[in-house]
Amino acid sequence: MIDQGLAAQLEALLGDRFTCSPGVCTEHGRDISHLDPHSPDAVVFPLSTEEVQAVVKACAAHGTPIVPYGVGTSLEGNIHALRGGVCIDLSRMDKILKVNQNDLDVVVEPGVTRLQLNEYLRDTGLFFPIDPGANATIGGMASTRASGTNAVRYGTMKDNVLSLEVVTPSGEVIRTARRARKSSAGYDLTRLYVGSEGTLGIITEVTLRLYGMPEKIASAVCPFDDIGNAIQSVMETIQLGVPIARIEFLDTQTIRAVNHVSKLDLPESPHLFLEFHGTEQGVDEQVALVSEIFAGNGAGAFQWAEKPEDRTKLWQARHDAALSIPAYATNTRQWWTDICVPISRLADCIAETHADIAESGLYAPMLGHVGDGNFHLAICQREGEPEDVERAKTLNDRLVRRALAAGGTCTGEHGVGRGKMAYLEEELGGSVDVMRSIKQALDPGNIMNPDKIFHFQG
Amino acid sequence: MIDQGLAAQLEALLGDRFTCSPGVCTEHGRDISHLDPHSPDAVVFPLSTEEVQAVVKACAAHGTPIVPYGVGTSLEGNIHALRGGVCIDLSRMDKILKVNQNDLDVVVEPGVTRLQLNEYLRDTGLFFPIDPGANATIGGMASTRASGTNAVRYGTMKDNVLSLEVVTPSGEVIRTARRARKSSAGYDLTRLYVGSEGTLGIITEVTLRLYGMPEKIASAVCPFDDIGNAIQSVMETIQLGVPIARIEFLDTQTIRAVNHVSKLDLPESPHLFLEFHGTEQGVDEQVALVSEIFAGNGAGAFQWAEKPEDRTKLWQARHDAALSIPAYATNTRQWWTDICVPISRLADCIAETHADIAESGLYAPMLGHVGDGNFHLAICQREGEPEDVERAKTLNDRLVRRALAAGGTCTGEHGVGRGKMAYLEEELGGSVDVMRSIKQALDPGNIMNPDKIFHFQG
Ligand SMILES: Cc1cc2nc3c(=O)[nH]c(=O)nc-3n(C[C@H](O)[C@H](O)[C@H](O)COP(=O)(O)OP(=O)(O)OC[C@H]3O[C@@H](n4cnc5c(N)ncnc54)[C@H](O)[C@@H]3O)c2cc1C
Ligand SMILES: Cc1cc2nc3c(=O)[nH]c(=O)nc-3n(C[C@H](O)[C@H](O)[C@H](O)COP(=O)(O)OP(=O)(O)OC[C@H]3O[C@@H](n4cnc5c(N)ncnc54)[C@H](O)[C@@H]3O)c2cc1C
Repeated sequence: MIDQGLAAQLEALLGDRFTCSPGVCTEHGRDISHLDPHSPDAVVFPLSTEEVQAVVKACAAHGTPIVPYGVGTSLEGNIHALRGGVCIDLSRMDKILKVNQNDLDVVVEPGVTRLQLNEYLRDTGLFFPIDPGANATIGGMASTRASGTNAVRYGTMKDNVLSLEVVTPSGEVIRTARRARKSSAGYDLTRLYVGSEGTLGIITEVTLRLYGMPEKIASAVCPFDDIGNAIQSVMETIQLGVPIARIEFLDTQTIRAVNHVSKLDLPESPHLFLEFHGTEQGVDEQVALVSEIFAGNGAGAFQWAEKPEDRTKLWQARHDAALSIPAYATNTRQWWTDICVPISRLADCIAETHADIAESGLYAPMLGHVGDGNFHLAICQREGEPEDVERAKTLNDRLVRRALAAGGTCTGEHGVGRGKMAYLEEELGGSVDVMRSIKQALDPGNIMNPDKIFHFQG
Repeated sequence: MIDQGLAAQLEALLGDRFTCSPGVCTEHGRDISHLDPHSPDAVVFPLSTEEVQAVVKACAAHGTPIVPYGVGTSLEGNIHALRGGVCIDLSRMDKILKVNQNDLDVVVEPGVTRLQLNEYLRDTGLFFPIDPGANATIGGMASTRASGTNAVRYGTMKDNVLSLEVVTPSGEVIRTARRARKSSAGYDLTRLYVGSEGTLGIITEVTLRLYGMPEKIASAVCPFDDIGNAIQSVMETIQLGVPIARIEFLDTQTIRAVNHVSKLDLPESPHLFLEFHGTEQGVDEQVALVSEIFAGNGAGAFQWAEKPEDRTKLWQARHDAALSIPAYATNTRQWWTDICVPISRLADCIAETHADIAESGLYAPMLGHVGDGNFHLAICQREGEPEDVERAKTLNDRLVRRALAAGGTCTGEHGVGRGKMAYLEEELGGSVDVMRSIKQALDPGNIMNPDKIFHFQG
């Protein structure tokens, strides 16, 4: 329960865009993660930076926790309101403010989603490449340092946010950078807020880099008999510096789910899904090179999707893989986990993880953005099999430890949230104390998304 | 003067790698900037992280200021020891620790220079692209968020540092990230330290991204009758998304100096220096496209440098431009300044700046990494013309204000140092208070390179 005075203040400010409705609160306290939901006490739907600022100031004055919220697609309990408080749902701040066509950038409100943005850009010849499977908000994606299938070529949110407007925990509005392509003007606050998961303030505006639509796009799927060969092909492609736009791995278990739900008939074997961007000639060259690498590793035949609608279908299937899994593995609950390793360690890491999965007896399809060394498991825990929880925990634990031992990270793109807090300490040790000092400096009252990323009392 | 006890402690620790020699101190307190030098009271030359740590702990215990130092090529008084204290010269920590060929990365000590690194990598087929004109250290380059001619394609230090080892102001050793290509594991401390100019700690190890040597490299110089046409050509090249590796602007004044000093006979007109990286076909395609753009803007004939030695000569001339200017404009002192604007504003910004230069009556050659919207002036102040100082100040002031008005930044790559502190406040307003809070949190005693980037009392 939030303080009555605060409730009155927020209601006066926002009218029916302030609510304590149990339905709305419940909805804003749960996600598809493996973690128990925690509802906020109230939800607000601001429409402007000024409204966000007013809400933050009011909450700060009452010491009431705030959880920023995009569309709740994060996977590590990032939006759980562990101490109750006010959820600030930014999804109605969804205006695209300005496309600077000649500078290849765009200014958006945080609630704009990636599909909305690309739809809007369609006629400009420009696009925004970062594409987590879900139709997440740009503010949420910035906050988790999200990436997706195109990151191998276009980078992650860290590389594609030029500037942010942020409401700080004390209710000041700051802008972290101007619109120049590069700058050495002081500490890189843009990159500090990217990936901070709502723990340092609320992003109210984002300036993003855009890219010209490539002259040619070619997509293909390619089956392999053997996972080792598939991953060897990925490593060679990356090591040769082929500027491939997407190179995605789906293991046999994932293909089963995709075939079943997306009504495809891919062979039941490990696959790579590929996309090439470039000029006509450039794409031809890349394809020739990659075909040679793949042939040298015993790949099956490429199945090409040349037409835009076929391409869309192919990538829809890839993106739907995440949704296919629960639809296929009925009566299970997924534990989505996410690691990233240096590419030279990827083959070993995947092989050992598959051995673990076999031993666990669980259905745990693997898929990932392997060009970056990044992959996920969707560990399926069966209803009525309470021991699956422990099995999933062990599997996840061994996976993360393996990644750390290989010089990798406990999360390549989903963020730490609640789920990876202990591993963050293992990964970065004393650096987490530095993070705590920064949190203490910028949010001494610990009101911004408390109990996420690391333990901190304020 | 530093405390006697501290001096004894440092001497016991480092022997003759601790010195109070006035010559050494003077040398470590001056640079080629327009600002008055300030010497440290002592200089130390550590050889290991442990030694750095011991020095930092000793200084911290005495509240003695520390100035980290690479090779002193920064241009905004960044290394001036404004409060005296101990300069930590990292140039002897110059080991290349590990090339991870298959992961396209390398681990180096901070004193490794960019030329040393590329010399070492020569036989691996890999290279590190960031190239400020000077042969700076990797630690210094990380600290100023440096870039250079290749940044238009390969990014800046922010994009190419994977991980840092840092000795914090309290003498803890932290590692900011693992070696994975991407990570969402907590606050991005790597990017916080990149560009922090030694004010938050001392970088003692750097992991960098590397790139495969392109199959083909082609370089050319191209003269223009008119600056507007040259810049229009740059804008169109960037807006079309040509993956050009270098696109550098030298105005007529700069060409004069380069011709004179490098014994070249380039026509005395504005020039673009270009480089293309890619496959044979890819480079041919890029060249065809750029040739067409340039022809449409009335460019002169390309002069190609195909052979490696010709290419080296061409880029040597570009890199030497900075040194040519003082050699040509004898008896002057340079005020190097550096701004960056959104590319759509570049032509106007350059034209207005040239008008200012004409009005000032000063020799102030302009050169820059225009593909990023970034350029410099070397404002030459004549000996025995005391009014030149005021003229240079006005010119710089108008330039920076123009960049800010265009949505740009007061420094594209040289950092804030002492010289741009007032402009940083104008550029980022309340964000500078956030920076101060971070400084306060991480260096409450204000011992790390005090009085740089922003005013802060500690
Ligand atoms: C099917 C599926 C597939 C996915 N695939 C990928 C993938 O390929 N790559 C990938 O990176 N992720 C993927 N994800 C994860 C998810 O989409 C990302 O974590 C996403 O970036 C979160 O965006 P959101 O708008 O849903 O934010 P939310 O989940 O609402 O919030 C995420 C975090 O950011 C904070 N936050 C949200 N908005 C703001 C704001 N404006 N200011 C400050 N803090 C804010 C929240 O407090 C929370 O900590 C996938 C998720 C699903 C369900
Ligand atoms: C002729 C010439 C051309 C140039 N061209 C370019 C260019 O094209 N692009 C560009 O970006 N710059 C350019 N510069 C500027 C310069 O080379 C950079 O600023 C360089 O990055 C500084 O490196 P350094 O090793 O000389 O560091 P220093 O000048 O010694 O130090 C720079 C700053 O970093 C700090 N520092 C140094 N080492 C460390 C460390 N290990 N840990 C923490 N802090 C540290 C210092 O305290 C100081 O604040 C040019 C300079 C010259 C003289």
